[in-house]
Amino acid sequence: MKKVLAEILTIGDEILYGQITDTNSQWMSAELDELGVKVIRKTTVGDTELDILEAFAQAEERADIVLITGGLGPTNDDLTMPMLAHYFGSEIIMNQDVLEHVQDFFERRGRTFTELNRRQALVPEIAEVLHNDLGTAPGTWYERNGKVFVSMPGVPHEMKNLMKKLVIPKLRDFFQTPVIYHKLVKTVGIGESFLADKIKDWEDSLPDHISLAYLPSVGHVKLRLTAVGHDRQILKEEVQSKIDALLPLAEKYIYGYDDMTLEKAIGEMLLAQDKTLALAESCSGGYVQHKITTIAGSSEYFQGGVVPYHNDHKINLLGVKPETLEAHGAVSEACVKEMAEGVRKAFNADIGAATSGIAGPGGGTPDKPVGTVWIAYADGNQTVAKKLQLTQNRLLNIELTEISVLNLVRKSLKG
Amino acid sequence: MKKVLAEILTIGDEILYGQITDTNSQWMSAELDELGVKVIRKTTVGDTELDILEAFAQAEERADIVLITGGLGPTNDDLTMPMLAHYFGSEIIMNQDVLEHVQDFFERRGRTFTELNRRQALVPEIAEVLHNDLGTAPGTWYERNGKVFVSMPGVPHEMKNLMKKLVIPKLRDFFQTPVIYHKLVKTVGIGESFLADKIKDWEDSLPDHISLAYLPSVGHVKLRLTAVGHDRQILKEEVQSKIDALLPLAEKYIYGYDDMTLEKAIGEMLLAQDKTLALAESCSGGYVQHKITTIAGSSEYFQGGVVPYHNDHKINLLGVKPETLEAHGAVSEACVKEMAEGVRKAFNADIGAATSGIAGPGGGTPDKPVGTVWIAYADGNQTVAKKLQLTQNRLLNIELTEISVLNLVRKSLKG
Repeated sequence: MKKVLAEILTIGDEILYGQITDTNSQWMSAELDELGVKVIRKTTVGDTELDILEAFAQAEERADIVLITGGLGPTNDDLTMPMLAHYFGSEIIMNQDVLEHVQDFFERRGRTFTELNRRQALVPEIAEVLHNDLGTAPGTWYERNGKVFVSMPGVPHEMKNLMKKLVIPKLRDFFQTPVIYHKLVKTVGIGESFLADKIKDWEDSLPDHISLAYLPSVGHVKLRLTAVGHDRQILKEEVQSKIDALLPLAEKYIYGYDDMTLEKAIGEMLLAQDKTLALAESCSGGYVQHKITTIAGSSEYFQGGVVPYHNDHKINLLGVKPETLEAHGAVSEACVKEMAEGVRKAFNADIGAATSGIAGPGGGTPDKPVGTVWIAYADGNQTVAKKLQLTQNRLLNIELTEISVLNLVRKSLKG
Repeated sequence: MKKVLAEILTIGDEILYGQITDTNSQWMSAELDELGVKVIRKTTVGDTELDILEAFAQAEERADIVLITGGLGPTNDDLTMPMLAHYFGSEIIMNQDVLEHVQDFFERRGRTFTELNRRQALVPEIAEVLHNDLGTAPGTWYERNGKVFVSMPGVPHEMKNLMKKLVIPKLRDFFQTPVIYHKLVKTVGIGESFLADKIKDWEDSLPDHISLAYLPSVGHVKLRLTAVGHDRQILKEEVQSKIDALLPLAEKYIYGYDDMTLEKAIGEMLLAQDKTLALAESCSGGYVQHKITTIAGSSEYFQGGVVPYHNDHKINLLGVKPETLEAHGAVSEACVKEMAEGVRKAFNADIGAATSGIAGPGGGTPDKPVGTVWIAYADGNQTVAKKLQLTQNRLLNIELTEISVLNLVRKSLKG
């Protein structure tokens, strides 16, 4: 099958001058890639008639699909609609459906509808209008000689909504592209190459139409399974059976799928087990508690915590023994275990977890260089601690400590 | 003076397929804008010979400057160097300086130098080599008919370093662009339009060669002063005298200049005044402490804090009176003041600050809807509290609470 080719065209001076970041085109590229469409060029031009027309012509010559964003405001420097009308030899007309939508949109928000706003409803007569339920500028769709032009607003959430709801399904129909099904498997606590080693035989067993990608980020590795075929339900079942076969090999590292986060996964485990958590954070400085409390409803299972940045407070608030600090220092197995046990008691929680380390850049010693971190978990039955040897970078050390201690809690909850 | 025109060309399949975000081109656009150069187009093409050559030719036709990134690895699919050689009718040669640098680069890092790595030193004979001290792929510079091509690595920190150190100064020389001097004035605690009102007369007094831009972000407004002329020292003095005139109008909102952050500014004030800080965070869940402890050396002035997510711990750890909670609830002036005073004492700090509110999405009441937040400051002499009415968005409420309580501390420290 001949590969369908696409170009992405962004229109707007504000992108050329570096005033705003273009996140749209990466997102569109990834969506097209999932559709099996190959993006061959991205172009950004300013609000200039000739540049826009030239870009249209060059893109049409090279590609089957031209996706255009931007230049759809109601003012005179917004040229996309008039240039599309010119390019396709069409008149500009007032579209009644769009006009009503725009009027309604303004009324609902209690904003004044002006003469200028009416211009949002001006579209090339030849265009098929794509209804933009999140904004006032409509999408438009053009077909000529087996090729497709699509114009969309540049506002990211409006563009994404239009793409997902209308453009992708229409492109799939028009070009008869195959169905693609993705599933993300999220792992923590194992590096990419170790994970790849562990699941090598499983990976080799994947059929040709299911591919695997490793997507590493700080402390995490995501596995993306991509299945290509004709029936979404069959692909979904095939992928699920492959994940079932993966579990025995990697279950201890997997904390969830697709949009799941580590802090959310722990919250769900705590809720399911009817347990509460408290935290004592020294080197991580409150970041673990911040991550936990970003989850709506975390007050159901999170009792609270302490950041005992100075050693005095480890003693006063958490009951760490002065002898422990004297004999081993704050960055030690003994201290971090007493912190976890202490915060559990102080907050009357089922589980206590703790961090203590040298985030850097200062504070390192030959024995305990920057990046030395202890983490601990205590639940009344057992107290476990783990030593980490992290990096020279303070912010990275804070983030890696957070992921590691949350993972320690997750593994302990899993039993 | 005729405006100098530039195009930005990015080479690499990984950008077209949406696997990585292109942050380079926005940064380059902003740099060129500061130089007074107008970017007229951005193009991304894949690792394909004809596409690259076509992009070179079209860009040279339209622009005076063509900035190219990417495609500089040592493998066969990295085509930028051979295509530049071809385009400028030059041979590819092994550059001895680059070769030595690359060998040295590998040796220092204890990595094996392979035959493949030698290829990083292959450059078009016609090119002027721009030394890349942060990586192995060199920059190259080409001049023809008064136009300039520059090729740089796509790794962002390498590209930025080359641009700052070599490319921008060389472009300034070549095109005799004016000197541009920027200064950022950072404000907090006042909205853009209110600030604009307050400083209107001052803004009107700016001479033509000094312009002002308002750059708003969550909770903050940055003022960017841009002076254009011929002598950097004179521009710097002119801008400073304008800032001196601004201070009486807006000093209470200004926390710093250029790279200063609010948490860093507070750290410097605490150090200068030899004072220590402790925090009690309910609705902000540890985020304020996290921000404070991102600053290296914060242990000098940060004693620590508590996240008393449940009311019991407000009583047990901070000494909030049960009667206060009963009469006013946790989200109240009385409670947040007792929290600030309590954490100050519990941590033996000079200053205590506190947050208590309803971050949402749940937990709102008609009296105290989602977004209702109290913040407080206590230093033993005075205790002040402030009520905020924030948004429906949990993460935004956490961030706005953090900024507001840090600003309350800043203003109190300022006296």
